[in-house]
Amino acid sequence: MSENEKKVPTVVVKRLPRYYRYLGELLKQDIKRISSNALSVKMNVTASQIRQDFNYFGGFGQQGYGYNVEHLYNEIGDILGLNDGDTTVIVGAGNLGRALASHDTFEKRGFKLVGIFDNDINIIGTKINGIEVMSIDKLEEFLNSHRVDIGILTVPKAAVMETAEKLVNCGVKGLMNFSYTELKFDKDVAVENVHLSDPLMTLSYKIKQNQN
Amino acid sequence: MSENEKKVPTVVVKRLPRYYRYLGELLKQDIKRISSNALSVKMNVTASQIRQDFNYFGGFGQQGYGYNVEHLYNEIGDILGLNDGDTTVIVGAGNLGRALASHDTFEKRGFKLVGIFDNDINIIGTKINGIEVMSIDKLEEFLNSHRVDIGILTVPKAAVMETAEKLVNCGVKGLMNFSYTELKFDKDVAVENVHLSDPLMTLSYKIKQNQN
Repeated sequence: MSENEKKVPTVVVKRLPRYYRYLGELLKQDIKRISSNALSVKMNVTASQIRQDFNYFGGFGQQGYGYNVEHLYNEIGDILGLNDGDTTVIVGAGNLGRALASHDTFEKRGFKLVGIFDNDINIIGTKINGIEVMSIDKLEEFLNSHRVDIGILTVPKAAVMETAEKLVNCGVKGLMNFSYTELKFDKDVAVENVHLSDPLMTLSYKIKQNQN
Repeated sequence: MSENEKKVPTVVVKRLPRYYRYLGELLKQDIKRISSNALSVKMNVTASQIRQDFNYFGGFGQQGYGYNVEHLYNEIGDILGLNDGDTTVIVGAGNLGRALASHDTFEKRGFKLVGIFDNDINIIGTKINGIEVMSIDKLEEFLNSHRVDIGILTVPKAAVMETAEKLVNCGVKGLMNFSYTELKFDKDVAVENVHLSDPLMTLSYKIKQNQN
């Protein structure tokens, strides 16, 4: 981060993927320019919020007549590091691991899946999305001989800490954890703990509000 | 919502599941009381933010010596509608659908899965987590004869709009959409669009920041 760059609040960071997705949709529709007002309607965020968010990154040069969609899309992609060619491994080839391995959106966003690991001898050796599932016993050997940036954890809760530590000790810089625990490492290891029941709880709240 | 209740901002609503999970962990550890300071350390939110958040719901009666964990857990669960016995169906029994159907956390949070549907004749009739997968052709008949509050959509993108409309037309009040689209209905239908690549993009951002 450059010296004069402001620390970007987490809520703003969390909105970047949404901006990126929306801009990608606009690009597909061959829309070349969009005003912060029009973007705000689409995104359900106020136009002033959008301008504030973008100001953290220099504002992206809106000049009265709106943002250049392609430029903005590429800039945000760059900020998100989507052009860095990050590689991933998935540890845990159960249903969720298989779903994520088959998820072509990850690849579309610039992430390259390079390995899948499991401890189930019935799964080891089978292929998911063209990639052979390897034994968990080979994980460290693999990590030591391949560049792996991100570990996606879909192992049972009881195994997550040990697996995460193996990944981190072998130089993995980020963990996406689906194992319903709150992993936390020193600040040089980035972690996203994903709780699939959170949006379900939020939905339940909204339903309840609608009924009142 | 009662007349004098403030409209709760989305960011606060989104934090409620996190509070709920953390309090659940504290309960498991048999912790009876917690100060907003101690909670703030655990949750990585400022104590003042926690108090502000809780004030939307009347403050939960912190009296200098902290919150009663069990009381707070139950109150937040209530606010989230987790005690309403919401029922769910999953439409799309691919890997992700299977993963969600087998996810015991959903049940722990008070959601009851009552049906799974797919259009693949190789999957129809098989059981996932004890529930038989039904033909998508039976979806409307099922919805008309069972109370279903929430539809979880794990169908391919091309099928999501039609499926969502069927669910809504049959009285489903909330949709959790995993189909990488932005569903939007009138305000009486609650929607959570879940994009699994968003946390991956956020992670990529964090990794990039750590490297700078």
